Amino acid sequence: VIPIDPASSRTSVRVRVRFAETDLMGIVHHASYLAYMEVARVEWLRRRGVTYATWADQGIHLAVAEVSLKYRAPARFDDELDVETSLGEVRAASVRFDYRIVRAADGTLCTEGATRLAYIDHTLSLRRLSPEMIEALARAERVIAGS
Amino acid sequence: VIPIDPASSRTSVRVRVRFAETDLMGIVHHASYLAYMEVARVEWLRRRGVTYATWADQGIHLAVAEVSLKYRAPARFDDELDVETSLGEVRAASVRFDYRIVRAADGTLCTEGATRLAYIDHTLSLRRLSPEMIEALARAERVIAGS
Amino acid sequence: VIPIDPASSRTSVRVRVRFAETDLMGIVHHASYLAYMEVARVEWLRRRGVTYATWADQGIHLAVAEVSLKYRAPARFDDELDVETSLGEVRAASVRFDYRIVRAADGTLCTEGATRLAYIDHTLSLRRLSPEMIEALARAERVIAGS
Amino acid sequence: VIPIDPASSRTSVRVRVRFAETDLMGIVHHASYLAYMEVARVEWLRRRGVTYATWADQGIHLAVAEVSLKYRAPARFDDELDVETSLGEVRAASVRFDYRIVRAADGTLCTEGATRLAYIDHTLSLRRLSPEMIEALARAERVIAGS
Repeated sequence: VIPIDPASSRTSVRVRVRFAETDLMGIVHHASYLAYMEVARVEWLRRRGVTYATWADQGIHLAVAEVSLKYRAPARFDDELDVETSLGEVRAASVRFDYRIVRAADGTLCTEGATRLAYIDHTLSLRRLSPEMIEALARAERVIAGS
Repeated sequence: VIPIDPASSRTSVRVRVRFAETDLMGIVHHASYLAYMEVARVEWLRRRGVTYATWADQGIHLAVAEVSLKYRAPARFDDELDVETSLGEVRAASVRFDYRIVRAADGTLCTEGATRLAYIDHTLSLRRLSPEMIEALARAERVIAGS
Repeated sequence: VIPIDPASSRTSVRVRVRFAETDLMGIVHHASYLAYMEVARVEWLRRRGVTYATWADQGIHLAVAEVSLKYRAPARFDDELDVETSLGEVRAASVRFDYRIVRAADGTLCTEGATRLAYIDHTLSLRRLSPEMIEALARAERVIAGS
Repeated sequence: VIPIDPASSRTSVRVRVRFAETDLMGIVHHASYLAYMEVARVEWLRRRGVTYATWADQGIHLAVAEVSLKYRAPARFDDELDVETSLGEVRAASVRFDYRIVRAADGTLCTEGATRLAYIDHTLSLRRLSPEMIEALARAERVIAGS
């Protein structure tokens, strides 16, 4: 377990709802939010200097081990959503990210939740986080030029 | 709250993993399981005489309000999975279904979890379950001929 | 180019439309049909004795190289669709499958189209079809017991 | 049929490949490109002053009627892709968009294709394009500040 600085552990990533992500209720399908959270995790790492695609090429995978989600208000096609993503906990072989997905136009909380990610290698065996990984997870977000 | 008979509240629905449902780790993407659970709920209702598409046409929606999932073992392309689905709780305006997703070939538990579904109408307003809905939810699975 | 027997080259695979496959128009999203065709190809091969998952494990991939689709009538949530799949052409390094997706309840043609699939290995290099692959593609559908 | 100015009819929209959009071959699944093209069409319209979500709310839908795609080179997780989108043809009741999807890092053409979109109303009946729609389609892209 490493200490987490709440201020530096938070990153907000904006996504826009795609037409294909809606369902016949006219709102975003509940499974689509898992994709938004995944996008946000990848950006969370990128802003701390880690290209997750490089980890994946090296056989370092943060596989989703647990998900919990509460749906508070529906989002709709073309809404811009801010996925506020925080590192919540670091254990020996897993990390937890917490999320609040907020409609950018009016601040409505649409969905909140958490995912626990286990570090597994290319053989799908559970591994302990390396010191390099822990160091990366403890970084603050860097200033990013452009989008 | 209505009493639930565990024996009659359980239905098993088989799905086969599609190629499109895998990801670059070579295993089923974690969001795909939400689709399997959705398929299983629709079949759970069908085997109790309810065509969910008819409910949806009438503006009766069981919208996903909460999700919790634990991933125990990976499933792979072309695996046959049994989605064991049980009614877990019935409240005034929502129901909970519990799931165990098991690989048919060897009985491995791949994923387990629960979804709470809120009854909302076509205006997305929360509604109390009607006596007819509660009666349907309390039914046992009927014998189905064919697949 | 091998000769194709139209009678033996045809297989019909039934799928049921999932809730997640619809969009806010209340109909099946156009991209969902590609998933149905993929499911049908895998079953087309299975009924000729080929488990595509085994080919994939061996690094034999039939990657989609071309798609053409015409959407004739919308399909809806919970519709049962018959994906009529025929081998259309076999070339040195690719095959073409033709599809008609028909609503089972009333025979309405929803979508028709074709996909060309290129044989590539695990390095994504184009390969010539082996005699064993061509022999498998020329087989007639076997009688399948059960679903 | 209206005349189309090739220079003003072109818009490039960048997307980044999501993890969920890959498959077990380690590359972008072929159906994912339809989602990218859909995103690009929505942005194509936005840069000409049309919010497609507003059209959809009004029952104005540009439904996909035909798709043709050729896959030239695989794209991978985390690749940035430029979806170059051009209005190709305007008919009485439909329009065609043409696409080239290019990997931003090295200019590799990954996929090219076209979609024909039919104008249908909320009853799914085919309609003739209105003068207002034709005027909007003939607009040049406006300068957009920010992303």
